[in-house]
Amino acid sequence: MGGYEAADARWDDIERTYADVASLLSTRPANVAIVENATVGFAQAMSAFRFTPGDIIVTSRNDYISNQLLFLSLRERLGVEIQRADDLPEGGVDPDAVQRLVRQARVRVVAMTWVPTNSGLVQPVEDVGAVCEAAGVPFLIDACQAVGQLPIDVSRLRCDYLSATARKFLRGPRGIGLLYVSDRALEGHSAPLYPDMQGARWTGPDAYELVPSARRFENWEFAYALVVGLGAAARYAMAVGVERAGQRASALTGRLRERMATVPGVEVLDRGAQRCAIATLHAPGHAGPDLQQALRRRGINTSVIRREHAVIDMTDKGAVSGLRLSPHYYNTEQEVDDAAVALAEVLSA
Amino acid sequence: MGGYEAADARWDDIERTYADVASLLSTRPANVAIVENATVGFAQAMSAFRFTPGDIIVTSRNDYISNQLLFLSLRERLGVEIQRADDLPEGGVDPDAVQRLVRQARVRVVAMTWVPTNSGLVQPVEDVGAVCEAAGVPFLIDACQAVGQLPIDVSRLRCDYLSATARKFLRGPRGIGLLYVSDRALEGHSAPLYPDMQGARWTGPDAYELVPSARRFENWEFAYALVVGLGAAARYAMAVGVERAGQRASALTGRLRERMATVPGVEVLDRGAQRCAIATLHAPGHAGPDLQQALRRRGINTSVIRREHAVIDMTDKGAVSGLRLSPHYYNTEQEVDDAAVALAEVLSA
Repeated sequence: MGGYEAADARWDDIERTYADVASLLSTRPANVAIVENATVGFAQAMSAFRFTPGDIIVTSRNDYISNQLLFLSLRERLGVEIQRADDLPEGGVDPDAVQRLVRQARVRVVAMTWVPTNSGLVQPVEDVGAVCEAAGVPFLIDACQAVGQLPIDVSRLRCDYLSATARKFLRGPRGIGLLYVSDRALEGHSAPLYPDMQGARWTGPDAYELVPSARRFENWEFAYALVVGLGAAARYAMAVGVERAGQRASALTGRLRERMATVPGVEVLDRGAQRCAIATLHAPGHAGPDLQQALRRRGINTSVIRREHAVIDMTDKGAVSGLRLSPHYYNTEQEVDDAAVALAEVLSA
Repeated sequence: MGGYEAADARWDDIERTYADVASLLSTRPANVAIVENATVGFAQAMSAFRFTPGDIIVTSRNDYISNQLLFLSLRERLGVEIQRADDLPEGGVDPDAVQRLVRQARVRVVAMTWVPTNSGLVQPVEDVGAVCEAAGVPFLIDACQAVGQLPIDVSRLRCDYLSATARKFLRGPRGIGLLYVSDRALEGHSAPLYPDMQGARWTGPDAYELVPSARRFENWEFAYALVVGLGAAARYAMAVGVERAGQRASALTGRLRERMATVPGVEVLDRGAQRCAIATLHAPGHAGPDLQQALRRRGINTSVIRREHAVIDMTDKGAVSGLRLSPHYYNTEQEVDDAAVALAEVLSA
């Protein structure tokens, strides 16, 4: 069966994905765009802003590397200024610091990564959203590591855009993501810099019209099997219960941090008042990739964290490389305990 | 198996895709970026240009709708001027018209769709490439409908960028594409407006470095099964022989146009000195979607062409909607003849 035929045959499932993603985010299907991946979603949202030299992007010291690179490119290209709000003493961005920054007239957007990829920190995005709304500044959330482990209600977050991926805690396929766009943004004629035939209609040689919904942020071409997979993952997560799954995963991760903290030579790196189902650690003198390989041979999957992926945060923590462990709800207490024992064995080998 | 594990297990196949795509384009792997789809590839390439108001984009009257929408957005946002080179009397862009336009100092790029999606026209991109090189103007080719049916040697095309898709005539999966970036562009520090951690290294809080190869135009996240599929499709096409496959497909399509021209009420729409394996037609008084459904019921797959997808070309031709038929080398003369008989039956029903 050809690709067009397959998409036609499953069109109801494809459309259903918008409804399922909307439910997951507590919004309506018209506010959902499906995108190639979270980075494309984030870039499409950022491309809606018409920056001029001297404009300010407010962000945190813990924003995702790819977002930071995008900000830096805008700085170099367009003369935009990047201001990173100060952290609280215990870690995590200080909403009062954001409030002080957004008073400046040239602030065009606040962009914040809800859960950094490199630590178990949960940023207080709801507080930041309240600050942004009061200041009348658009708010963009990168929810890549949040979706699937934290319940999401975009109206409580008061965000204008929220990007995320199907994989990670949502347990969907790689290569597909989502972008929420608020009514406020849509009604304000927000549009990507590079619209395509999915997002706009070509009405005359030199004229076009945006489609009314968030789909104006989509590109036309999709790997539709992945779209259907995103819908299935959203339904699965809601059937399990995101809050329930997240609480269980977070409790397992708290236990994991406690166990890991007792392993000689290991330092747990997570900070912040609220932490989630990502545990990060390093063992000074041991390279993250070596530890990862040794644990994989024992059937334990981890990710490597590197300073170059979180230059500010890892430098603050004095860490060069380490491991990220992300238990999900289906893991067991025994597996968590076994991981700590395995790491102790690896380090003493 | 998790997504990261699967990618690790098939890493050799993933890397091999770059070599296979490079062979297909007669270039080196370092000049190949793999992208989410052809539109993303085209937009990434266009984002390399630092347009200022009054800059000129030279294109054709037959460029792909999504490219036209991108140009129009740049016009609206940045005050860029779009100039479409005149066609030859027989159809297809006039390279001399391009030459006259690129003499203007403000021309920043010539962007040309090799084979429009809405007709069997083959644009004389090699001649246009020679014009661009002589004028010192960067040249971007959208090769979406060309790759797999026309042999590609980027050095003969003298292009700086060439975007394409895995599906269509290459017969690969949906949701993956490629972008060629020339040494000239790479050495000139060409970079996308929104680089991510695949394309750049974050070297300090406010500093980054582009990777040396064309991968600076990639995003980090991939549906790797599709990447491997792209590589397999490239190898398959080369094993068959692109020139041989294209000649066979083009001959079948020539036969199809002849047969269709004899069907009462049908007008074949293709123009241009060189035509390829896409036949387009309309039957005034019959809507394309209705014809498509009727033929599908007879086991014949076609695409609908619409004026809104090719506003300039379809208006020139006086067509509102019609059909696109794209025989490939594996089709038979009998199938081509049967399609014409079937269309005649549908129209006389």
